[in-house]
Order: sequence, then C-alpha cells, then structure tokens
Amino acid sequence: MANSSSISSPKLTNRTEVKIRFSEVDSLKIVWHGNYVKYLEDGRENFGSQYNIEYLTMFSNGYTAPVIDMKLQFKQSVSVADTIIVETTYRPTRAAKLIFDYTIYNKADMSVVLTAETTQVFVSLDGELQLYNPEFFQKWKERWGY
Amino acid sequence: MANSSSISSPKLTNRTEVKIRFSEVDSLKIVWHGNYVKYLEDGRENFGSQYNIEYLTMFSNGYTAPVIDMKLQFKQSVSVADTIIVETTYRPTRAAKLIFDYTIYNKADMSVVLTAETTQVFVSLDGELQLYNPEFFQKWKERWGY
Amino acid sequence: MANSSSISSPKLTNRTEVKIRFSEVDSLKIVWHGNYVKYLEDGRENFGSQYNIEYLTMFSNGYTAPVIDMKLQFKQSVSVADTIIVETTYRPTRAAKLIFDYTIYNKADMSVVLTAETTQVFVSLDGELQLYNPEFFQKWKERWGY
Amino acid sequence: MANSSSISSPKLTNRTEVKIRFSEVDSLKIVWHGNYVKYLEDGRENFGSQYNIEYLTMFSNGYTAPVIDMKLQFKQSVSVADTIIVETTYRPTRAAKLIFDYTIYNKADMSVVLTAETTQVFVSLDGELQLYNPEFFQKWKERWGY
Repeated sequence: MANSSSISSPKLTNRTEVKIRFSEVDSLKIVWHGNYVKYLEDGRENFGSQYNIEYLTMFSNGYTAPVIDMKLQFKQSVSVADTIIVETTYRPTRAAKLIFDYTIYNKADMSVVLTAETTQVFVSLDGELQLYNPEFFQKWKERWGY
Repeated sequence: MANSSSISSPKLTNRTEVKIRFSEVDSLKIVWHGNYVKYLEDGRENFGSQYNIEYLTMFSNGYTAPVIDMKLQFKQSVSVADTIIVETTYRPTRAAKLIFDYTIYNKADMSVVLTAETTQVFVSLDGELQLYNPEFFQKWKERWGY
Repeated sequence: MANSSSISSPKLTNRTEVKIRFSEVDSLKIVWHGNYVKYLEDGRENFGSQYNIEYLTMFSNGYTAPVIDMKLQFKQSVSVADTIIVETTYRPTRAAKLIFDYTIYNKADMSVVLTAETTQVFVSLDGELQLYNPEFFQKWKERWGY
Repeated sequence: MANSSSISSPKLTNRTEVKIRFSEVDSLKIVWHGNYVKYLEDGRENFGSQYNIEYLTMFSNGYTAPVIDMKLQFKQSVSVADTIIVETTYRPTRAAKLIFDYTIYNKADMSVVLTAETTQVFVSLDGELQLYNPEFFQKWKERWGY
C-alpha cells in the first residue's frame, strides 16, 4: 500500500507575530494593501528559519527563489493599534516550485484579515531557471516526508 | 436588438511610464516583488485621472474603493536602469465592483514584465459595503457605454 | 540651591530589537539608508509604550506630534542577516518640543551603526501649533522629574 | 591672480517634479516624513542624469557613494493631491565628499515644504573609503570649474 504523504507527513506551519507600524497605515487609517506583501515575506522568512529553508540557506546552496505568482484576498482591515499573526503553511507539490498558503489573523480576536498564496521557482545564481528540484530542496522535502 | 457592449463600447486603457527608483531594487539587483503593487496603483490612479474616476472623485462622492483581491504573475525582472510602462485596462462587469487588468512592459523592448488584476468594491464613508453600483459609478459606466 | 534635573531625574531610555527585512536591503546588499527612519520610529513608538507617551496617547489627548527636524549620521552598514538594537533616549528641554537621541547598534557585536536625533512639536487636532507645553505633556515631564 | 570659484563657477541645480502617491500619505493625511528620503534620492539621481554623475556612472568608475549624513527640516506638509518640486544643488567642497542641498516646494504655490542636505563619501567596490577625490570625480569638478 502506498504511503500517502497526506497521511504520514506533518503539516509544516509557522506563526509569526507582526506589530503594525504607523508608517504602514494609509490616509483611510487602515494598513495600505501593498504592505501585506512584506508581512507575507516576514512569514515566509520565519518559516524558513524554523524549517531550515530560509533565503540565505538557498543562496548558500547556489539558488534564489523569486516569487513568480502571488494572490491575495483581503477580508478585513487592520490599523495602527493592531498586531497580526501571519500563518505560513507549506503546500506540497511535485513540481520544482515552492508554494506557500497564508492566513493573516488579527491577534485581538483571531478573525481572518487576509488569505494569500505565493509560488516561487528556483533560479541558479547564474540565472538559469531550474526545471527539476535542486538537490538541496529534494533532500529538504524527503526529510519532511514529502 | 441590444448591441452587445463588447461591440459598441470603447476599450478604456491608460499607459503610465514609471522610472525605477534605486530604493526599489533589492539585493538580487532586481525590483523587489512587493514594489509592483505601487506601480499598479500608479497605473490605476492615472487611469482615474484620464477617465475621471480617481480616488478623490470617489471620495467626494462619498465612497472609497478598497482592493479586495489582487493577483500578480511575474514574467521577468527589471532593474535600476529601467523604465516600465504600466498598461491599465478597465474590465466591464455588472457587479458593484471595479476590476482592472494590468500589463507592465519594459520600455526598452516592450517585453512583458508582469500581468496582474485587481478587484475593488465600494464602501461608503461610514463603512457600509455597497451591494449595488453607487450612482456616480453607474453614470460613469453609462457614459462609456457599459 | 536649585535641584538640577540632571542629578535627580532618571535617564529615560528604551531599547528595541529589529530584525532586518530582505525588502529593506538595497542592490549594494546593505540596508537602504531611508529605511532607518522606520527604525527610529519603531524605537520612538516603543519608548512611548514603555513610558506612556505613544502616538495614540497624544492623539487621545488632542494632539499629534509631527517630526520637524531629523538628523542622521551613518557609521556602518548592516545587511539581511543582521539584527539591530535601536536605543531611544529622551532629551529634556523646556521648549514645547519632544526631542529624542538615538543610537542604533548591530546586535552581533554592539558596534554603532547610526546616531540620530529627531525633534517633534505638538499640533492640536485642528492644526494649531502649540507654543507652550500641552498639559498632558507637562504632567508627563513632572512625573519623571523634568 | 586666481579667480575664486564662487565667482567663475556656475551653480549646478536640478529641479525634479514628483507627484505624491496615495501610498506615501499616512493616517494624518500628510506624506509620512520618512518618504522624503525617497524624494531627495529622486532629486539626486536626476541631478546625476543632468550633470553626468549618476549612480551608474560612479559604479562603472569603480565607486559607490553611500550617504553618511542627512539632515531634514520639515516646514509644512503635503498630501495626496499635491505635486512637489525637488530642487537639488551641488555644494562645492575640497573634501572627498559629495554634498547636496535640497529645497522641496509645493508646486501649487512654490511655498517651501522642506529643506535638507546630504553628504556622501566615495567607497571603492572592494569597500575602501576614499580619503582623496577619485579621479573621475576630480575631472567632473574641474569640468564645472570647481
């Protein structure tokens, strides 16, 4: 019987707390929508620190991982007194891609502020798009049962 | 027989030129992906100036139009010496929404840098989501044959 | 003999830790100089939280405190792997001003990254510059022996 | 007898127009003070384009020119409907430094919004601070009679 990875593999998730900065709030007194891209990157980098796949790890293995696709759905606004929780979850895929799903919560009541997803590809330091999983990423997946 | 609006109505498009700032380029020497949200807003605001539906017009009519959905596909990078063209096109819809499609080009060779779409809804100044098109927007649509 | 406030009053200082974001680093692989203004605001806001004089406290008392003067001296650079410590110190003055001195350290070796100062004035919510200390600020100073 | 350079040399000034972006305005409905650092850089880069001493020129000569000192005095605020003029003027000095004075005007009435100055030093691409004027900069100065 095949081991389904959905059964045996753990769900990899990071939760990062971010305090809203005064300079991130716009004239409508809510966080300007473009700033959420930074919060997603905060979540992704902390995911990387927790699971050993951060930007500098990739870089030292000879790769960068540019975002090629990004989708954001805004559910409600937050403002200067608020703290948010960025929940970043790895989405397993066989493709040579790194896909994350995000939910941002208002820490006060854990209501959903935003859902999002990003897709990254691997590019070697001399600029070559990788069609197959780089070795370091293949090992990373296997380590987590994916 | 009704004329389909796709036949009789003009395509509403704005083209805005943006010179890349040094501060918008990241350590990989390309524009940081989050900065494209600003370029989309530049395009949208200039579209608004050209077709009389800018942020301040909406505001003086008693509405704001927050972005509730945003999708970006990155095709290639640009850097500090580059100038981009943000092409912003109105996408007709019956819903009480404002939807724009974007293509960003590298001005040097007009190759595609990014495609994107944003969806905005109308919220009254006291915070009420509008389920029907506000009168000013309905008139705006009719003026352009939509 | 007058009690000199420099003898009897405590030095009010806050230390805030900030992790450098990838998006804050420029193409020379160092933090872009303009981003330090955000770090100073982080320090100032945390000073405000610690000593009960934050932005929202002022606002609820009927005032804002815009920065009217800002001086920054850059001593060395930091980059994406770094964490900085923003040390924010209140500088006593009789004038109706709020003056802070800052030293930013690289957390790794506590070497100095930047020194800075900012001056803020008090403006009522209807836009009037205050030539005398607002009552809430006078009380705040007295509470700390200034 | 030597002609004083203050008599024979032209004043080198660039004027750059910048339209305020919605995302640059804070919850007090004025441009957030940290954003002026970007406008100064806009002015400096356009000065560089006009007088052939821009960032990429320096870089191709083997140098970068980090800002080591920055002073800003805020005179009045601007907001989302405004356009500003950044006036950037070269300040002659014998030192191996690049010093600029800035005045930012509100285009509507040419009232002064901000005055500022920045000081840059020259650093070779291998990180060495230059104590003497690099040759390309010495030639640049002579070309303009400084």
